[in-house]
Amino acid sequence: MNKLLIVGTVAFDAIETPFGKTDKILGGAATFIGLSASNFNLQSAIVSVVGEDFPQEYIDLLKSRNIDVNGLEVVKGGKTFFWSGKYHNDLNSRDTLVTELNVLADFKPVVPDNFKNADVIMLGNLHPLVQSSVLDQLTDKPKLVVLDTMNFWMDCALEELKAVMKRVDVITINDEEARQLSGEYSLVKAAAKIHEMGPKYVVIKKGEHGALLFNEKEVFFAPALPLEEVYDPTGAGDTFAGGFSGFITQSENISFENMKSAIVHGSNLASFCVEKFGTERMVNLTKEEAQTRLRQFKALTQFEIELS
Amino acid sequence: MNKLLIVGTVAFDAIETPFGKTDKILGGAATFIGLSASNFNLQSAIVSVVGEDFPQEYIDLLKSRNIDVNGLEVVKGGKTFFWSGKYHNDLNSRDTLVTELNVLADFKPVVPDNFKNADVIMLGNLHPLVQSSVLDQLTDKPKLVVLDTMNFWMDCALEELKAVMKRVDVITINDEEARQLSGEYSLVKAAAKIHEMGPKYVVIKKGEHGALLFNEKEVFFAPALPLEEVYDPTGAGDTFAGGFSGFITQSENISFENMKSAIVHGSNLASFCVEKFGTERMVNLTKEEAQTRLRQFKALTQFEIELS
Repeated sequence: MNKLLIVGTVAFDAIETPFGKTDKILGGAATFIGLSASNFNLQSAIVSVVGEDFPQEYIDLLKSRNIDVNGLEVVKGGKTFFWSGKYHNDLNSRDTLVTELNVLADFKPVVPDNFKNADVIMLGNLHPLVQSSVLDQLTDKPKLVVLDTMNFWMDCALEELKAVMKRVDVITINDEEARQLSGEYSLVKAAAKIHEMGPKYVVIKKGEHGALLFNEKEVFFAPALPLEEVYDPTGAGDTFAGGFSGFITQSENISFENMKSAIVHGSNLASFCVEKFGTERMVNLTKEEAQTRLRQFKALTQFEIELS
Repeated sequence: MNKLLIVGTVAFDAIETPFGKTDKILGGAATFIGLSASNFNLQSAIVSVVGEDFPQEYIDLLKSRNIDVNGLEVVKGGKTFFWSGKYHNDLNSRDTLVTELNVLADFKPVVPDNFKNADVIMLGNLHPLVQSSVLDQLTDKPKLVVLDTMNFWMDCALEELKAVMKRVDVITINDEEARQLSGEYSLVKAAAKIHEMGPKYVVIKKGEHGALLFNEKEVFFAPALPLEEVYDPTGAGDTFAGGFSGFITQSENISFENMKSAIVHGSNLASFCVEKFGTERMVNLTKEEAQTRLRQFKALTQFEIELS
């Protein structure tokens, strides 16, 4: 089986949306990426850090999804990274209420030996130096390296971000971040500029408005599935990235055509993530549900048109 | 040839965007609808009203596109409807600076005899009573009646709007208007409620984020083409409606599958409209350009995916 190496936070989240609020629940980029990627036929490993307060049942959950946790460091006496946020009424924006880095502040990722030759590397949102240090540890050139990042690093670690961007094949960022990073309002122009900064492929996530995939010459768009109810957008972008990188890992094909399918798989899985708080929907998702919704995606987007 | 009857404003617009501003130029819903629909093989007529100040060259332009202007009343001594607006930096919102109804205030539409049996009726944005009075004059039941409207009528003529909605097959409105009309934030729920108000098909326009087509059971989505430059969104929604209704008129097919194609044609034509101020791009658009961009639309949206 092909191997997917995932780096990112494993965390506690406390979330408030117009539909309710949660206590501290399982969260973190690597968690959502790992759960999402586990829908494909692959071996994955998470490189991350948690504190002694992190429940064994959460670790067991990851293991049950065939996720290798040998790279998940547990710091004795340490506390797990904690994020708390409150979403606005339209769910498109949110305020961060609490960010406690805790053990994440001194995180030095160690890639397990058996994943130093992973086929695909998914660098979840973290300090760019941490992302770089993971790439430094690889023994074999991966088929594809995917980088997720956010505006926070553009504000406070731009040079380090630019350095790691030169080492990756795909970057996934949201529309506002693409505009900030490129200084261009048009997403077409923004993608072209970001492309020049390193990544051959630029994925721009637009939340409920879908996602764009650019290479130097081509562009592909997948909508978000229109949903009756959206409860909690937390983790949707990471779930998307997990579906994207998971499908690429399984299929061993990095053609633009196959990346289109990967974008659709990512969008499909993200559509489930938002239907419940935190990881709940992803944990209970069945293969049949994912397949049924893929059919809906086809019906939603595919058309026949005569060209003269 | 099949007949498309278009009702809506023919106007002067003065537009300011971050990229420049115009003096009074040709505008109006019926103008954009007519120019857009003229890309298809059909006969169309515009029912509208202008003042004596309306230049003959604009009337000649419409005629040159095979648009029957016998229903375009010219009021002696009257002044043409004038709208002026200023777009914000993101082009997604605008302030209306001036609205001078002028001859539009007393407009009583008269449908030319040879269009009382039109195949498709496109009711552009106008007072719902004016839209209704056009339907009253038809001698034959049309294949399809499409209604465009806006939040202004929801605020000040809601009962009249609801009455005309019961008489149409398709309604086109933007996402905010769909939410206002239905009281539902989710566009899936909004479309279901609007469907219950009359129209079998609900088209929700999301501007740069594309358009959704709903019937009772199905949903289809077409993105807006990602563009390098957007100069002026004025008329894009009407151009979309003109492409939609024009393609349906030409193809004589009101299946959901064919409506998907109509949505794509509408999106395709609207993508040109925004590239220049006012009607300029639509006036100079060639068949080859439209075909080339349709190919881009296919590449943008079509994918292969394995279903188990």
